[in-house]
Amino acid sequence: MKWFRFEQEGRERIGVESDGHRYDVTTQAYTDSLLEVITRGFEMDVDLDIAPLITEDVRLLAPYVPMRNVICVGKNYADHIKEMDTAGAGKFVLFTKAPSAIVGPFDSIERHADLTDQLDYEGELAIIIGTTGRDLTPENALDHVFGYSIVNDVTARDLQKEHVQFFRGKSLDGFCPFGPVIVTKDTFDPTDVLVETRVNGQVRQSGSTKLMIRDIVTILTEVSRGMTLEAGDIIATGTPAGVGHGMKPPTYLQTGDIVDVSIEGIGHLRNEVKA
Amino acid sequence: MKWFRFEQEGRERIGVESDGHRYDVTTQAYTDSLLEVITRGFEMDVDLDIAPLITEDVRLLAPYVPMRNVICVGKNYADHIKEMDTAGAGKFVLFTKAPSAIVGPFDSIERHADLTDQLDYEGELAIIIGTTGRDLTPENALDHVFGYSIVNDVTARDLQKEHVQFFRGKSLDGFCPFGPVIVTKDTFDPTDVLVETRVNGQVRQSGSTKLMIRDIVTILTEVSRGMTLEAGDIIATGTPAGVGHGMKPPTYLQTGDIVDVSIEGIGHLRNEVKA
Repeated sequence: MKWFRFEQEGRERIGVESDGHRYDVTTQAYTDSLLEVITRGFEMDVDLDIAPLITEDVRLLAPYVPMRNVICVGKNYADHIKEMDTAGAGKFVLFTKAPSAIVGPFDSIERHADLTDQLDYEGELAIIIGTTGRDLTPENALDHVFGYSIVNDVTARDLQKEHVQFFRGKSLDGFCPFGPVIVTKDTFDPTDVLVETRVNGQVRQSGSTKLMIRDIVTILTEVSRGMTLEAGDIIATGTPAGVGHGMKPPTYLQTGDIVDVSIEGIGHLRNEVKA
Repeated sequence: MKWFRFEQEGRERIGVESDGHRYDVTTQAYTDSLLEVITRGFEMDVDLDIAPLITEDVRLLAPYVPMRNVICVGKNYADHIKEMDTAGAGKFVLFTKAPSAIVGPFDSIERHADLTDQLDYEGELAIIIGTTGRDLTPENALDHVFGYSIVNDVTARDLQKEHVQFFRGKSLDGFCPFGPVIVTKDTFDPTDVLVETRVNGQVRQSGSTKLMIRDIVTILTEVSRGMTLEAGDIIATGTPAGVGHGMKPPTYLQTGDIVDVSIEGIGHLRNEVKA
């Protein structure tokens, strides 16, 4: 089952996609907040037989804005480490992105030309936490997952380097396209899916999640050691090789570029870089 | 005026301290959320003449838990840079702490002995953002401030180093004592106040905020360039010299230690390290 948030007549609504059809389940969910649906563990209780079909084109929004920063795993694909500064190779690198960076799956990415000359993309699989917990074990870690989605961990490489810590270079407004849906874990196996990023149609990144250095269960158990993971948390699992910074010569995003991040079984983000 | 949150008969209440008296203003504020008070810019509207006096001892809570990670400025006092790894000296280093790390001003700091042998303190002045904004200017930056408070940026030095990025070593549960009050900007001048940290009564840190490399206005203008600051955001402004990691030999916190962080004009945090 796929959950999404959309706009209709200026109001935010919650939808479910199933068997190629889209349904408006806002009334049944008693909320227009998908974050609330996730935190209350509501996923099993909608009855699509009585939900209105969505027949027109609607604008998809980011599924929700989380209550704390997006947690990001760095250096989690060996080929990506090779194309980047190798400092930290082998380490479990964790940083965060500000929630204010989140934009919808088809919104624009702000260019920030006054702040960066090195705008770059990072397509990533995102884990959506459904149940709060700490010190998760390999046995129970996946019980805490609601589902999966896609983020583009947009990065200003020059700011990332200048500030030493990654937070600022990862957190400018518009730097986190998110969506288009959250697919529930019962209908999606994240262990071997292609993460692909295209710029203006040209394939730049194409790597399977099976190449992750730390897999999803390992990420969950390690991140939650001594630190409570909360329902609604988003964990971006790292990016495969092929970012613009690693090209020869480095090739950064420019105004007008279209960045498309897709993961089979979830969908795709498609964001234009705008001044 | 000083705002605080407290617990009475199992319920959360909002209080104001003025002229040495404490008042319960929960009813007047129409909320038990100090974050809501801040985001709606309610500060001027309470009438202490009709507010009930708080006469008994009450348990103070952290003023609130923010809607996103605590933003922290690193390496902002020259003497602290000298006592630490000097990588990043001169850079504007920004990282974050998870909101789940926040505890009350007199709660315990969890020892996490299974995860760290190098538990350390960092007393810091915190800026409380009152009005959302981006690209703040030197002229309007302080208009976006609600007030000031104290945080102890508790850090696991070994995790901080092991994970390269600071987030995890700064974000274990209990690693962010916060409070005891938020003093509004109209009654507090943060430009030259002593930040002092004592461990078991022994003074470890004692540095004036006038020694900051980037002052409050500079922090606000630089952090908000291209990144929206939101009402309720907490910005920790960096720690002066005197952390345990910089002592010869390094002297880390142990179970039973009492850590006291005080700033004249705000108050103090007093937290015991517990297993």
